[in-house]
Amino acid sequence: MGSRIFWLNPVGTSAFDAPIGEALRAEARPDTRIDVGSLTGVGPQHLEYQAYEMVVAGKTMGAIRWAEENGYDAAVIGCFYDPALRGAREITTRMAVTAPAEASLHIASTLGERVSILVGRSKWVPEMHENVVKYGFADRLASFRVLQMSVHEFQKDPARTEDRIMEEARLAVERDGADVVVLGCTIEFGFYAKVQAEIGVPVIDALVAPVRYAEFLADLQSRHGWGTSKRVGYERPDQAELDAWVPIVEPTVDRDPRT
Amino acid sequence: MGSRIFWLNPVGTSAFDAPIGEALRAEARPDTRIDVGSLTGVGPQHLEYQAYEMVVAGKTMGAIRWAEENGYDAAVIGCFYDPALRGAREITTRMAVTAPAEASLHIASTLGERVSILVGRSKWVPEMHENVVKYGFADRLASFRVLQMSVHEFQKDPARTEDRIMEEARLAVERDGADVVVLGCTIEFGFYAKVQAEIGVPVIDALVAPVRYAEFLADLQSRHGWGTSKRVGYERPDQAELDAWVPIVEPTVDRDPRT
Amino acid sequence: MGSRIFWLNPVGTSAFDAPIGEALRAEARPDTRIDVGSLTGVGPQHLEYQAYEMVVAGKTMGAIRWAEENGYDAAVIGCFYDPALRGAREITTRMAVTAPAEASLHIASTLGERVSILVGRSKWVPEMHENVVKYGFADRLASFRVLQMSVHEFQKDPARTEDRIMEEARLAVERDGADVVVLGCTIEFGFYAKVQAEIGVPVIDALVAPVRYAEFLADLQSRHGWGTSKRVGYERPDQAELDAWVPIVEPTVDRDPRT
Amino acid sequence: MGSRIFWLNPVGTSAFDAPIGEALRAEARPDTRIDVGSLTGVGPQHLEYQAYEMVVAGKTMGAIRWAEENGYDAAVIGCFYDPALRGAREITTRMAVTAPAEASLHIASTLGERVSILVGRSKWVPEMHENVVKYGFADRLASFRVLQMSVHEFQKDPARTEDRIMEEARLAVERDGADVVVLGCTIEFGFYAKVQAEIGVPVIDALVAPVRYAEFLADLQSRHGWGTSKRVGYERPDQAELDAWVPIVEPTVDRDPRT
Amino acid sequence: MGSRIFWLNPVGTSAFDAPIGEALRAEARPDTRIDVGSLTGVGPQHLEYQAYEMVVAGKTMGAIRWAEENGYDAAVIGCFYDPALRGAREITTRMAVTAPAEASLHIASTLGERVSILVGRSKWVPEMHENVVKYGFADRLASFRVLQMSVHEFQKDPARTEDRIMEEARLAVERDGADVVVLGCTIEFGFYAKVQAEIGVPVIDALVAPVRYAEFLADLQSRHGWGTSKRVGYERPDQAELDAWVPIVEPTVDRDPRT
Amino acid sequence: MGSRIFWLNPVGTSAFDAPIGEALRAEARPDTRIDVGSLTGVGPQHLEYQAYEMVVAGKTMGAIRWAEENGYDAAVIGCFYDPALRGAREITTRMAVTAPAEASLHIASTLGERVSILVGRSKWVPEMHENVVKYGFADRLASFRVLQMSVHEFQKDPARTEDRIMEEARLAVERDGADVVVLGCTIEFGFYAKVQAEIGVPVIDALVAPVRYAEFLADLQSRHGWGTSKRVGYERPDQAELDAWVPIVEPTVDRDPRT
Repeated sequence: MGSRIFWLNPVGTSAFDAPIGEALRAEARPDTRIDVGSLTGVGPQHLEYQAYEMVVAGKTMGAIRWAEENGYDAAVIGCFYDPALRGAREITTRMAVTAPAEASLHIASTLGERVSILVGRSKWVPEMHENVVKYGFADRLASFRVLQMSVHEFQKDPARTEDRIMEEARLAVERDGADVVVLGCTIEFGFYAKVQAEIGVPVIDALVAPVRYAEFLADLQSRHGWGTSKRVGYERPDQAELDAWVPIVEPTVDRDPRT
Repeated sequence: MGSRIFWLNPVGTSAFDAPIGEALRAEARPDTRIDVGSLTGVGPQHLEYQAYEMVVAGKTMGAIRWAEENGYDAAVIGCFYDPALRGAREITTRMAVTAPAEASLHIASTLGERVSILVGRSKWVPEMHENVVKYGFADRLASFRVLQMSVHEFQKDPARTEDRIMEEARLAVERDGADVVVLGCTIEFGFYAKVQAEIGVPVIDALVAPVRYAEFLADLQSRHGWGTSKRVGYERPDQAELDAWVPIVEPTVDRDPRT
Repeated sequence: MGSRIFWLNPVGTSAFDAPIGEALRAEARPDTRIDVGSLTGVGPQHLEYQAYEMVVAGKTMGAIRWAEENGYDAAVIGCFYDPALRGAREITTRMAVTAPAEASLHIASTLGERVSILVGRSKWVPEMHENVVKYGFADRLASFRVLQMSVHEFQKDPARTEDRIMEEARLAVERDGADVVVLGCTIEFGFYAKVQAEIGVPVIDALVAPVRYAEFLADLQSRHGWGTSKRVGYERPDQAELDAWVPIVEPTVDRDPRT
Repeated sequence: MGSRIFWLNPVGTSAFDAPIGEALRAEARPDTRIDVGSLTGVGPQHLEYQAYEMVVAGKTMGAIRWAEENGYDAAVIGCFYDPALRGAREITTRMAVTAPAEASLHIASTLGERVSILVGRSKWVPEMHENVVKYGFADRLASFRVLQMSVHEFQKDPARTEDRIMEEARLAVERDGADVVVLGCTIEFGFYAKVQAEIGVPVIDALVAPVRYAEFLADLQSRHGWGTSKRVGYERPDQAELDAWVPIVEPTVDRDPRT
Repeated sequence: MGSRIFWLNPVGTSAFDAPIGEALRAEARPDTRIDVGSLTGVGPQHLEYQAYEMVVAGKTMGAIRWAEENGYDAAVIGCFYDPALRGAREITTRMAVTAPAEASLHIASTLGERVSILVGRSKWVPEMHENVVKYGFADRLASFRVLQMSVHEFQKDPARTEDRIMEEARLAVERDGADVVVLGCTIEFGFYAKVQAEIGVPVIDALVAPVRYAEFLADLQSRHGWGTSKRVGYERPDQAELDAWVPIVEPTVDRDPRT
Repeated sequence: MGSRIFWLNPVGTSAFDAPIGEALRAEARPDTRIDVGSLTGVGPQHLEYQAYEMVVAGKTMGAIRWAEENGYDAAVIGCFYDPALRGAREITTRMAVTAPAEASLHIASTLGERVSILVGRSKWVPEMHENVVKYGFADRLASFRVLQMSVHEFQKDPARTEDRIMEEARLAVERDGADVVVLGCTIEFGFYAKVQAEIGVPVIDALVAPVRYAEFLADLQSRHGWGTSKRVGYERPDQAELDAWVPIVEPTVDRDPRT
């Protein structure tokens, strides 16, 4: 039996839940079950600004608690800033948690040596660069390339988005010497396969990578007991404090129809 | 006329507001006015865990907005993790924002070359180390030293806290080669002067340093127009989105009696 | 259907093939098939010295070619120095290749933040440290700890080996602040589960980790076309040159009995 | 009462003393008193070469001693190479000492995240880059940009200098992604306000920044006892040796008319 | 009396032995004696791929052993990837061993501060960059520049090769700010003097540099006992194991006619 | 014919000139001629403080000019802080210049991988560490170890000095994992041979290393035209300015009796 994974869109709209669920179920292992959820009662519909991340951060914690309580084997915090990943690891015990940048960069830096990340706007770069440094991949970074598109444009005119990704992926390889390309936003989904076929280097999708990494982590946990270390930085808070201060939050959920 | 500074204790208790206000007013410039506030309607009474930072993060954003609307020249987010500093800089235009680790480390690395940070528990180190790296001071770090005390113990038995700080500050200098010591929690206040007199190196207080840095930043803004850059990483969100998604939050405030 | 993996013991003895095969088949996914091979006609029976790595390096290349020709989905070069990994990636097209240090460090730095690697002798450290740097995990390294044992001692007196691993793992956590431990030699197998149960942090086994990572890479390749980039550093040689200069080498193979 | 600051032009010409004094007094706090001095009996009239820095270095030490003996609260060594800053900190006890690069970079890296430094000639870059690394800001450096002008040209044809600064500042922002610009020579004074108004990011002036930082350091010293650490790298020489080997040097001084 | 140096072309062709011998004897000290050898029974005629390095690596170890047994004072492993240098240092005791990248980069970073390396193809860059990092010169690297030529083309049409080197050396200086140029392949020999005369910065030849460095190391060994450290990373294997597993290999040798 | 080398003791005492001259002539190549000089008219008799370096810096420049005018092939600035090395390279054209830390570290990091530097007092460490970083060897540094002796004590009681060096060298190897030891002061001369014989790793002497490196650089210059790059950071000042501002200074000289 495969693992049960909860993908959280940490925003106040469920508009992306169904299409992301559908996309992920088609890419993951056949025996994986993937539910996709989002938050209610928060405003932000995208997280291009850290201020918005902060607004949804509390309920994100609560939704992660919900996911563990509901028996998921792994959760993904679905934004390429990897928001609140440390917090999520503090409050979980058995359930694995990962996020798009972490997963994409581990995979990319195994498949190649020089990674280019395609982002929507230059605004995103400094915070994402902090994560590249934190995860250890600064010397593997060939470039950030900017598509000049905001999050909500990616799925509005897919043909244009594909053109832009194709163009910048090509420049990443030809000018920046990249041998792997990472799509630096979860909403850039649906494009990787065609771009990689055309460009000739692996193109890592920010939806698919973390779900596959989540399956992998869940499996390491279940077979070898290799889960998040509960010492030092991911130490767990006292249970009573946690219950009082980080209430469980039930997200809206698009359930895997095969469950 | 001096500047007006808002110190935010980003927790759900106002217990520290008055003593911090009193301490700060005694240390800042005489013409500076300092109001100290905290959040209501959030649980966490300390932020030793990132999960708790995340729970208060949204209201922290709202309180920063409130401070700018209320004409403060500068605000300090009063936790040594420097939580949500990027977000705060995104949403402000005129008002300076800083935080304890940033301010303490800039000052410490000017006064000396090898900095030791005294933290309460080893749990705090990884997240604080990320900030040391981010701010550029990794090569200046002599050590983190752990007092083996939690946030709420510091002011309960001040004599014991002073002993522990004295002991670890001495070891920082003698064993780790530190020439400056930083107290790595805002609640370690009230001890720096005596410790520094005894140990013989500057001991930077995590309350005093950011308020002095805030005065400095406010003054740079007012005389030279040197404020937070509004390009790239601190770009401001669209006003309508901001109003809809990051509501202003009025904190509880302990007002400067001289105002 | 699961993936077929070839584990290469890149030494001139088949003594470890059967026990390693048995150990791996018990740990991998049930539908994975694992054959374990070694080289004939080369002297070195362990690779503690780079000079020995160099002696077996040519036939290692040939055995990797053999594995790809024989339809394996992934291969592991079974030595914690990760010898000749670049060469192996140059000459393969479809088959994934990984090695113990790469796999263990990617996993360890996801589960925790401070990694301690337990090696047999201090001689091993500089070359392994080069790999830690190359893979990007230098800032995650808590320590190397030395067991004071050579490769061939690990399985001779398992009780003593377990004692030594237990002792150094404990010191890694208590003195060096590690939150994950990696066993830095493939022949340190058979110990991780008990040590991790006792010490309370994940203990990554250098046999299990690369086989699990190999499964993962093979699956990424088959479902998403995410294989080794064939641009820049892993560019493939000309086929005629390759056939002339890097002859295929058939290893001795301990076959998976379930095949 | 404000602080008394001594600005040293460490060159053998007093030509810049009066205009620099005038410029600084207009920018500093109203209660700050600023005297500007230079050296006599040394040849170099600019310090574009380290050989020239070395020629004036001895008398620079003597003038710093003179400043402390004459009761200044802080001194600035007025050259963007920050010459002899360590030596100045060794021989002072109460008086703060800073220099343009140190001050400008601390301020710039607080206001933004990507700093571009506009220098006169490419010759200057390696020595200045050493300081950027030493202060910890290497990862914040967007670029050095070269104005193709020598020190003595900056004030000869101000209109042309302004044009060049404007042009390169614009390219720093648009091409290099800078969000803050630093003017990398004290003689580039008089231009920052207009450039920053036009370009829209903070433009840090190498005269104003260190004087403001000097005020700040002097105030930290007087209120909190936070002065230069006298341990390890800034340890003070024996007084008798110091008197014998580093004679006090009286500079030519342009006194603050308000004193 | 000068030193006896053995230059190993670690390939299966002796075609370059005589011309390299001739070139080196004209450049080294008059009292140095230089024999140039190559391997028999191995396929690769160039080492552009790590897979080929691996194929020749075993016999390279054997030839190094042969050189020490035959009384050479120093040996050079003649490929700019510096293949198997650690292994060579493990198995030698009295004889110095160096290689082109190590020697060229030590010299270049003494003569200048910004080094550009001219390589044949972009394929070479990642492995060479690993060496630049390992030797400590990453921050000195101005650029890699690609001649778009493979190893065997360099000596086929020397006029064209010289043109290409001249062109890229010029761009290294003018665009990348290099103040020293390194020719990143031993087969780029015969060009440095003319290019450096024309370009005006030192141009380090990958044949000459390691032979001069080998003379220097041999002399340090003979006068001061400063030879390869035999502790930790260069520890020597047990003699019996070494004799059994790393057999001595006699290379083809082009002897110095003056011997 | 060998090279003529000028060793400058950049202090105001000639007390060390004769013993250093004698020591060096016994260690250098037999055909090398070494004159040793010092400065007159400057106070400092040692350079433990940067303030003292600055006092002698101007005359150091003048003495370097004198050396080039007097036909030396190379000069060494004889202090382990490598003072004014950039300035010396700016003002010379034909003559090589080096210094103890640069030379010792290049040699040490070729002979081993982990370098420990034995200094007199902890005061010296930060400035020397800056040079270790600047030269690229930060990752090769095993430790600084402090002898707790000042410069002028080293030759007063040689037996005690030898004991201290022996003790700390042994700890460097056994505790810090060093495989090479560097003596971090030119006045620690006369001890290296015995210590290295006893400890079993290379011990690099700060007198011998730079003279041997100077011979090497002079020879590279004379045979291959590989001299200090005159572009960018070592660009030469205008001749008229140089003559006016950096007067030639004739040092006191202890001449090589064999000349």
